[in-house]
Amino acid sequence: MIQFSINRSLFIQALNATKRAISSKNAIPVLSTIKIQVNPSDITLTGSNGQISIENTIPVSNENAGLLISSTGAILLEANFFINIISSLPDVSLDFKEIEQHQVVLTSGKSEITLKGKDVEQYPRLQEVSTDNPLVLETKLLKSIISETAFAASTQESRPILTGVHLTLKDHKDFKAVATDSHRMSQRLLTLDKAATDFDVVIPSRSLREFTSVFTDEIETVEIFFSPSQILFRSEHISFYTRLLEGNYPDTDRLLMNQFETEAVFNTQSLRHAMERAHLISNATQNGTVKLEIAENAITAHVNSPEVGKVNEELETVEKAGSDLTISFNPTYLIEALKALKSETVRIRFVSPVRPFTLTPGDDQEGFVQLITPVRTN
Amino acid sequence: MIQFSINRSLFIQALNATKRAISSKNAIPVLSTIKIQVNPSDITLTGSNGQISIENTIPVSNENAGLLISSTGAILLEANFFINIISSLPDVSLDFKEIEQHQVVLTSGKSEITLKGKDVEQYPRLQEVSTDNPLVLETKLLKSIISETAFAASTQESRPILTGVHLTLKDHKDFKAVATDSHRMSQRLLTLDKAATDFDVVIPSRSLREFTSVFTDEIETVEIFFSPSQILFRSEHISFYTRLLEGNYPDTDRLLMNQFETEAVFNTQSLRHAMERAHLISNATQNGTVKLEIAENAITAHVNSPEVGKVNEELETVEKAGSDLTISFNPTYLIEALKALKSETVRIRFVSPVRPFTLTPGDDQEGFVQLITPVRTN
Repeated sequence: MIQFSINRSLFIQALNATKRAISSKNAIPVLSTIKIQVNPSDITLTGSNGQISIENTIPVSNENAGLLISSTGAILLEANFFINIISSLPDVSLDFKEIEQHQVVLTSGKSEITLKGKDVEQYPRLQEVSTDNPLVLETKLLKSIISETAFAASTQESRPILTGVHLTLKDHKDFKAVATDSHRMSQRLLTLDKAATDFDVVIPSRSLREFTSVFTDEIETVEIFFSPSQILFRSEHISFYTRLLEGNYPDTDRLLMNQFETEAVFNTQSLRHAMERAHLISNATQNGTVKLEIAENAITAHVNSPEVGKVNEELETVEKAGSDLTISFNPTYLIEALKALKSETVRIRFVSPVRPFTLTPGDDQEGFVQLITPVRTN
Repeated sequence: MIQFSINRSLFIQALNATKRAISSKNAIPVLSTIKIQVNPSDITLTGSNGQISIENTIPVSNENAGLLISSTGAILLEANFFINIISSLPDVSLDFKEIEQHQVVLTSGKSEITLKGKDVEQYPRLQEVSTDNPLVLETKLLKSIISETAFAASTQESRPILTGVHLTLKDHKDFKAVATDSHRMSQRLLTLDKAATDFDVVIPSRSLREFTSVFTDEIETVEIFFSPSQILFRSEHISFYTRLLEGNYPDTDRLLMNQFETEAVFNTQSLRHAMERAHLISNATQNGTVKLEIAENAITAHVNSPEVGKVNEELETVEKAGSDLTISFNPTYLIEALKALKSETVRIRFVSPVRPFTLTPGDDQEGFVQLITPVRTN
């Protein structure tokens, strides 16, 4: 029966990272528990919501853990409740002892709390992903790809495949991440330094956002393993599994065009703030759009709500070329697109009032392009 | 028609303080607006939810306001919406101009936003409170009295009078604030330095909490004016009105006792943390209580939930006197009582397992006493 002592604050940290996979309202009751597996030289914490699973290992060799394992075993404990209890204890260290089947006594300072757990046999087995031939990426790069694309995925379940981000590797080096909700699209291209095995997967964007929270910036690289139905992101102590979406992702390449009629470069922040103001009013209008007027001497933004009021604003431009154009669109899409851009300026290219327009970083950094579909007004 | 220019961030600050009185979901639509009254030498902002009203004055003489008034008048604007718009504008200063009846143009930098307002005639008149003979209190002292009592008021509307804090002045100097929800009570006594007119009022505890947010610590003193149905708290630039509760407040003095059987002094923080742990488990029990056992050699706390687990904990005591006693109570009341105490230690006095127990600051600072009713078990 389990017995160990551990530094309480390090334990809380590992529990909280694992908890990100656990939903307290899961339809399968056992998934609201955390699995604690005590091995001779480490403790592994497991949490899962059926979609994503996290395994977090605390090795005896981690000096900050102050981990002393006297006896091994495994148990399930109600995750939220257990973490609240551990967080409330008074001392820097914690003794964890299983006293009889599925009961643990937690001792810290003069506090002694006894909790009822569950038989570990009830816990579902995580599907296995074969761990050879990984794709290795810098955590920072992977997180930046996620922040550039995941927001553009759909949040509606009407076309489930669009709730994911489409990741592909072709010719062993050509990496592409793309997401679209059919109103806008965001795509990131990358050429890998080292050749890897080709893949073509659609990962739920929600899983990718959780990945971003779990893999902190101190973790330098991530190994990625693929199986037909799952993907595993792994660092030294954390394994993050997510299910893949099934189905064919639509062909997004045909949406991108190479010819443009009008082009302008804006300061990213000031354009974003102008759109945020426009959005306050457009929100109150029937079609929710802002109208951009590109003319000889100025680019202006307009919203007119008969009920609430109107916005008229001259936009600061860094560059402007091509023909005059008037185009209407939902400012929310432009605001979110600008948030995803790290460059100081943004280049926007227009074809016509009824065709999607593209955004690229103003510093001409390659590989990142976004697309927004206008709204026909008249 | 109104025309003025003002420093935008100072204006936002004043708008936000006024907004505290405004509920966007008010049943009376006009109360979701903010009233802007522009006088020759100041601007007064008014917000009200029918229960509390706030008037905030920005004088031309305030150098930080950069206030330049060209033309006077008054208008109503949708509060939340207006504040969001003002907050989103780009420049440090803002021009506010009424262009035609009930329409204003806001200009800041290259942004121009036009908003529809409403006729100021629709706004209800605030009831008048005669402003002579004020009671003057230090803001800090008044806020501390509120934080010591308001939390103990009832949140249930079954006995509306108990949702308020009972404030009285007797013999021109004896000030008392008391609140109770019939399970616990908190009372603060104070002897005024300067004689004032006696009063006996019940102020909604919610209003007092709003008062605490509106009157920042930079405001040194508050003048308090009484009318039969309202009370006015006033500083140089802010007037805060609240309705009073009608009815007779119960006699709470008879609850306080002078004889005790058992007495103990605890460290406030460590007792609070022990109760927070107990509460995590007691929450899962049927009666939600913790049992305190005061014995010859130790004071211990116990909770036992057949479903979840149990807590056993020895409490650190500074002093202990009197007979042994076992008493059960809801730990939430003790946690909240301890939060309201600023002293490092707390003295708790018990009469019997079925009689309320009292808490006083351990440093024997006078005038603050709290009372908690035990729960009869078995």
